[in-house]
Amino acid sequence: MDNIRIIEVKRSIFDDNNKDADLLRAELKAKGVFLLNLMSSPGSGKTTTLIRTINMLKSDLGIAVMEADIDSDVDAKKILAATGVQSVQLHTGGMCHLDADMTRQGIAGLDLDGVDLVILENVGNLVCPAEFDTGAAKNCMILSVPEGDDKPLKYPLMFSVCDLVLINKMDVAPYFDFDLEKCKEYILRRNPNAEVIPVSAKTGEGMEKFAEWLKRQVKTQKEGE
Amino acid sequence: MDNIRIIEVKRSIFDDNNKDADLLRAELKAKGVFLLNLMSSPGSGKTTTLIRTINMLKSDLGIAVMEADIDSDVDAKKILAATGVQSVQLHTGGMCHLDADMTRQGIAGLDLDGVDLVILENVGNLVCPAEFDTGAAKNCMILSVPEGDDKPLKYPLMFSVCDLVLINKMDVAPYFDFDLEKCKEYILRRNPNAEVIPVSAKTGEGMEKFAEWLKRQVKTQKEGE
Repeated sequence: MDNIRIIEVKRSIFDDNNKDADLLRAELKAKGVFLLNLMSSPGSGKTTTLIRTINMLKSDLGIAVMEADIDSDVDAKKILAATGVQSVQLHTGGMCHLDADMTRQGIAGLDLDGVDLVILENVGNLVCPAEFDTGAAKNCMILSVPEGDDKPLKYPLMFSVCDLVLINKMDVAPYFDFDLEKCKEYILRRNPNAEVIPVSAKTGEGMEKFAEWLKRQVKTQKEGE
Repeated sequence: MDNIRIIEVKRSIFDDNNKDADLLRAELKAKGVFLLNLMSSPGSGKTTTLIRTINMLKSDLGIAVMEADIDSDVDAKKILAATGVQSVQLHTGGMCHLDADMTRQGIAGLDLDGVDLVILENVGNLVCPAEFDTGAAKNCMILSVPEGDDKPLKYPLMFSVCDLVLINKMDVAPYFDFDLEKCKEYILRRNPNAEVIPVSAKTGEGMEKFAEWLKRQVKTQKEGE
């Protein structure tokens, strides 16, 4: 189970990342593949969230995962061991984000036959990944309760580029001063179109909603072809 | 109390940040000012840790704070309101880190008369701030329990550049799968010289040790002059 493919992604040679991202988005759509870009701080629970979500969806959808990290392969191994789905590790060589070309290098390492949904777990960082369109069809971020309800005020770009915000670790909410309504208000102030789903990837609370959201996105993209 | 000075720091014009950082370090040492660079993920408790630490030390040391953030002034206001010490907000204009010249621009906004210790709260990010020497005498980072004990494996550079790692939010350790001994082992694997202090900025647990560490650093630098 430990046979993880590691791809050392190279710095992009394209001047216009936005154009390249649009191109990748169109290519993936034509192949019937929905790409989700999942972002968050380090330690907000991206990998745990992915594992539970994949296990809820893998009988309905063909799923593959790209795990971006500075230089470990901890996450891709975890994903493969816990879900059995195709998983590659992208090493960014110290870079703090992925752009569209780096994402394309990762996609090239996947076998897309039968795959409906590719999830890119971006580098844990609330700043840089928000600045680069990866070519994903949708952006999702995870904010976890222990990080605090004021994060949308402090990392505004991240919240404004995300279609969906998962508020994770709701199971520990009683032990933190986290005001969910205030947090939602801050998010919507940055991004009136954002959807917000409170979840606990650990207990499963709210995860059905996220799985439904994903199924709906994949279906909508396919129907739009 | 809301009269916070905001400094829009400009991108550095220096080619050699390391050289510039050495210069700033020497300048500050000559002025009898110890600069601590405090780094962490978003939401690990930097501001809460600072407030408690400053209130423990402000009768012994002259303290000033620089709060770096993308564009809010939430933290500098909090620090001023809770401690009364001189506090400036540095806006990085979207940039994910501070370098030595940006730090110097912040220092220039402080009145250093009677100041022994300046604390720079860097942008919340485990990747980019580790790559830029700010000119600080020492680097300290906070890893909080909810982020997980595997972070030294995933953000190796950050742990290798820090002299001190505070493990914060120990008060909620019973609610998370966090192995303190394993975490320490991972940190020391990256950086055998790192000191590690488990704390809870909320309850005060372990904070006396951090305050003592800071007093010792300030004293040692002064004696070395």
